[in-house]
Amino acid sequence: MIPGADDAITRDGKALILAYDHGLEHGPVDFDPVPETTDPATVFDVATHDAVTALAVQKGVAEAYYPEYEEDVTLLAKLNGTSNLWMGEPDSAVNWSVDYAAELGADAIGFTFYGGSNHEVEMAEEFREAQEAARDHDMGVVMWSYPRGQGLKDDTSASTIAYASRLGLELGADIAKVKYPGSEDAMSWAVENAGNTKVVMSGGSKTSDEAFLSTVREAMDGGADGLAVGRNVFQRENPEAILDGLEAIIFEDASVEEALDANAALEADD
Amino acid sequence: MIPGADDAITRDGKALILAYDHGLEHGPVDFDPVPETTDPATVFDVATHDAVTALAVQKGVAEAYYPEYEEDVTLLAKLNGTSNLWMGEPDSAVNWSVDYAAELGADAIGFTFYGGSNHEVEMAEEFREAQEAARDHDMGVVMWSYPRGQGLKDDTSASTIAYASRLGLELGADIAKVKYPGSEDAMSWAVENAGNTKVVMSGGSKTSDEAFLSTVREAMDGGADGLAVGRNVFQRENPEAILDGLEAIIFEDASVEEALDANAALEADD
Amino acid sequence: MIPGADDAITRDGKALILAYDHGLEHGPVDFDPVPETTDPATVFDVATHDAVTALAVQKGVAEAYYPEYEEDVTLLAKLNGTSNLWMGEPDSAVNWSVDYAAELGADAIGFTFYGGSNHEVEMAEEFREAQEAARDHDMGVVMWSYPRGQGLKDDTSASTIAYASRLGLELGADIAKVKYPGSEDAMSWAVENAGNTKVVMSGGSKTSDEAFLSTVREAMDGGADGLAVGRNVFQRENPEAILDGLEAIIFEDASVEEALDANAALEADD
Amino acid sequence: MIPGADDAITRDGKALILAYDHGLEHGPVDFDPVPETTDPATVFDVATHDAVTALAVQKGVAEAYYPEYEEDVTLLAKLNGTSNLWMGEPDSAVNWSVDYAAELGADAIGFTFYGGSNHEVEMAEEFREAQEAARDHDMGVVMWSYPRGQGLKDDTSASTIAYASRLGLELGADIAKVKYPGSEDAMSWAVENAGNTKVVMSGGSKTSDEAFLSTVREAMDGGADGLAVGRNVFQRENPEAILDGLEAIIFEDASVEEALDANAALEADD
Amino acid sequence: MIPGADDAITRDGKALILAYDHGLEHGPVDFDPVPETTDPATVFDVATHDAVTALAVQKGVAEAYYPEYEEDVTLLAKLNGTSNLWMGEPDSAVNWSVDYAAELGADAIGFTFYGGSNHEVEMAEEFREAQEAARDHDMGVVMWSYPRGQGLKDDTSASTIAYASRLGLELGADIAKVKYPGSEDAMSWAVENAGNTKVVMSGGSKTSDEAFLSTVREAMDGGADGLAVGRNVFQRENPEAILDGLEAIIFEDASVEEALDANAALEADD
Repeated sequence: MIPGADDAITRDGKALILAYDHGLEHGPVDFDPVPETTDPATVFDVATHDAVTALAVQKGVAEAYYPEYEEDVTLLAKLNGTSNLWMGEPDSAVNWSVDYAAELGADAIGFTFYGGSNHEVEMAEEFREAQEAARDHDMGVVMWSYPRGQGLKDDTSASTIAYASRLGLELGADIAKVKYPGSEDAMSWAVENAGNTKVVMSGGSKTSDEAFLSTVREAMDGGADGLAVGRNVFQRENPEAILDGLEAIIFEDASVEEALDANAALEADD
Repeated sequence: MIPGADDAITRDGKALILAYDHGLEHGPVDFDPVPETTDPATVFDVATHDAVTALAVQKGVAEAYYPEYEEDVTLLAKLNGTSNLWMGEPDSAVNWSVDYAAELGADAIGFTFYGGSNHEVEMAEEFREAQEAARDHDMGVVMWSYPRGQGLKDDTSASTIAYASRLGLELGADIAKVKYPGSEDAMSWAVENAGNTKVVMSGGSKTSDEAFLSTVREAMDGGADGLAVGRNVFQRENPEAILDGLEAIIFEDASVEEALDANAALEADD
Repeated sequence: MIPGADDAITRDGKALILAYDHGLEHGPVDFDPVPETTDPATVFDVATHDAVTALAVQKGVAEAYYPEYEEDVTLLAKLNGTSNLWMGEPDSAVNWSVDYAAELGADAIGFTFYGGSNHEVEMAEEFREAQEAARDHDMGVVMWSYPRGQGLKDDTSASTIAYASRLGLELGADIAKVKYPGSEDAMSWAVENAGNTKVVMSGGSKTSDEAFLSTVREAMDGGADGLAVGRNVFQRENPEAILDGLEAIIFEDASVEEALDANAALEADD
Repeated sequence: MIPGADDAITRDGKALILAYDHGLEHGPVDFDPVPETTDPATVFDVATHDAVTALAVQKGVAEAYYPEYEEDVTLLAKLNGTSNLWMGEPDSAVNWSVDYAAELGADAIGFTFYGGSNHEVEMAEEFREAQEAARDHDMGVVMWSYPRGQGLKDDTSASTIAYASRLGLELGADIAKVKYPGSEDAMSWAVENAGNTKVVMSGGSKTSDEAFLSTVREAMDGGADGLAVGRNVFQRENPEAILDGLEAIIFEDASVEEALDANAALEADD
Repeated sequence: MIPGADDAITRDGKALILAYDHGLEHGPVDFDPVPETTDPATVFDVATHDAVTALAVQKGVAEAYYPEYEEDVTLLAKLNGTSNLWMGEPDSAVNWSVDYAAELGADAIGFTFYGGSNHEVEMAEEFREAQEAARDHDMGVVMWSYPRGQGLKDDTSASTIAYASRLGLELGADIAKVKYPGSEDAMSWAVENAGNTKVVMSGGSKTSDEAFLSTVREAMDGGADGLAVGRNVFQRENPEAILDGLEAIIFEDASVEEALDANAALEADD
């Protein structure tokens, strides 16, 4: 990491990244809960919420929708990704060059790295090229650090997540996105291992407001620098409400109860 | 997709792409029904029909025949393709560079992508290079999005086709060419998943006039932006007739009956 | 193919290519019948015969012998090839860059393509690079189109050879070199499938004068544009005699009997 | 090796390289003995000790921490490395380009080479590129020469280590880092095989002060040019003390007893 | 081959190449017979003998020792090579770029080619790049042509060696280094197959003075253009003596007896 490289995608050093690459990674099924989210414009609208510090999308979605939102949305170019139609040892195609991401106006790149996969070596080398190209463009670098593959028995154990965030530091990410390791202590261990690299918790599949906000609160208490979230926002009928709650926790150090109130207040306003 | 990038290969936002790369993909057998179609000039003549917005061919065919038709035919450079003499896990060779396609006068590129194949990652990366090179040349990008491979049980299910069209959007195609998913509703779902990327139905193997036009009508009713067709045009004795019918449906919103009339009228003129 | 690209290696649109890359492909055993042919100079001398429109050799042979013959021999740079010491799925190493072939004075390139091999995709992509580089140098392109590999049961069936010549057209060869498919009709089908790409028959292993000339006559009657031959010329004691016969058939439309007379006349002169 | 190329990372021709890439290679577990060492700043502080001639870290750690220490620490850019989450045949990803290492201020590169691995050929070619790029930047080259892989039964035998150091010489390293082969004689053999390439002993896993210093003393007596050490320094509560002892042996030719005294003196000062 | 390209590494058209890459290929064991040869300087001294027309070493050895000998030794840059710690299907890593070899002052390159190996295609393509780069630098090209691999039953049969030398010619080597095929006739066949490419016999493992000189005499009688030798020179206590004998045979057409006398004379002088 380079001090300040993530400034464009953080606020007061904290990040709330809205991720919307599920159309590639999971396919249309992720839009079933709220069919309107099939339309990227819906999610770009959500991303104009003040709480959101960056929106992560694949190249094609950026080409088609970002130009209309460039004043209101910060673009995080998710460079790699693969469909789940393919079911081999974890790997990810590089679908977007850094030069073209910069040309389209991205302020940072996102890159999935499957430590432990039989493709780890190849992915690390692809990450190297992307990371160094990002440096040439003064873009921030976010690593989706997801240990996964035939050798891994438990990919959310405390030690695996601590290793995951460390990989972000060692390989040169400004921010490491890791799965929640299950407790504040485990998150704290992961944060320590990342050193100066920031750590954001991955939102994961949808849970209840309270469960989700509680987990985010624990992650922040453990020292996390924010959240990267997709389904837990856009699969809700009122994504603005949960974003209000998340904003309270991440940027205003609110308790879960305060965050739920913020959330409820908005829902009542509807 | 980039707004307007497909203008050269569409009319009023609709496409009728005539595809003629069967000599590579299937071999001489596809010319058996109408032996004259072995000669590319025959199909270039067909492509001068007003209804046809672009003709998709491989490099060698373009080199040899396009120069004589450049006033009357819009060239879509089909970049990759593989013979069916080879029978491995779905893959496709890149036979044509984008730079050379532009030099020969192509207005757009076509690229087959087999999501779900063990070669998906490699093909996605080849698509990236082609797509970004096409952007440099202001050429449109059409993805033949055909999920296929050892992990796929049903490659024309509604969810597979919706995923296929979504891959076109996510990876940066201006137009996604997908197989017909069997119903207007399924086509509609696929179209929604493509967002601003246009969707054209793939013509498939030859059927009767009525059956074919009915399917195209359903696809258009489902929101498709047109058709990419080969055998269902050039394997007919009178390809102009079916093109008249297709023109009526695609560009004039005709019913199947009206289209069959247009078709019959021409055949009667013969 | 590009009209005129093969002019340097044809006469009146017909080709008689003398191939001499057997030292690489088969090893010394092919020189046993006429040991003098071990010395490339012997075959370069043969290639000065008026009937020969081009001599196909590998890089090293061209470097060592072509400079002394550049006034009298047209060089066809055979770019790829592999020893038969190696016995894997058909593949061929690219031993010569197009730039260097041009520097050495070659007027055209030759490239083996094994459609149907597990290496088909890779070979097609190597062919793409070579073909496009040849275009930059205004060099002709000859494809040795030899379907071969684990999926092919009969590599000289009529449909396989028609597919082979079609691959030459689709992928951008000016001339496709194919094996004789066994009859005039089959050759005719192959020629039709090649469109504007020329088709030359591959000479194959040595047969009697009459058998060989008869086959060439049939191929020409089937519409072939000439011959590419190695062993059936240089494995004869008097290669000039058979070249006289071939010249009569290919360029003067002679019958087999006339060709045998031309042949005999020369042999009598010896 | 090139005479003088290692000057920036040696003193009087001797090297004491502090290695701290364990976060990548082994993960957080290596920081358990002294949790403060999870923070790279702690180890950079240790590296300011006069005895340390260079600090070897991965790119991300260098980006984040080296700028604050550039006056006091000499940077050795460890270019490759892989997590132990992955458990295949030994290999190592190239995570850092030489150009970028030079840009960040590194004076030398470090590169792991697993002779005997099924990836040996590939790693040797990656080493070639790195080594030659380092020459362009006048940077020293240190090879972590660790024979390893399915064909190796004993990777610390005298003959294996002598081969390992020879590989450093043959392939162009200025310094070869090898495991201790078990005796002064064996080390001497390894040193002879390295010719003008310097040889440093690899520190290995943590042992007692006396055992460790005795081994280093033996290595130096065998002709080694120093030490590259990680855990045996930073896994101690008082790394400065052991560095005093190492300095005495490596640079002042002290006996083990004298070194232990130096060590004890400092510990007493604490 | 290009006439004259080997002038810098031959005398009167004959070559006596001293090879010293055994530290990489075989490891320290090859230095056991004469331990002083572990030190490359010892062998560089031997290479100053008038009989030696070039010394073949790997990059690292050239970097470290050649600068002091550049007035007295002609450098042949052995570009590829692999340790015997690795035991897979024959392959060889390219450890040295031609550009850097030229920069270090090499007059020619050496390249191992394992025809028949499953890596033959890849090695041929690496050879292509090296050979053509050497042409750009006006450097000679020596191929270590060693058919080897799973398909080869007898790698020193007459037909295999004749094929090996032919591969040198076909692929563009100025000199082919082949194993001795067992008789003068077999060597003669190999020489004929190499055409204008020179052929040098490979020295092989150490034998007695008489046996070795007799073999070299036979090879020269068979038309060989010299010798490339390592162990049969440097594993002798008095390498100058055997070089005197070799000089007599190779450059002065001496008999074995005369050569042994030359050899004995020198040994008596010691």
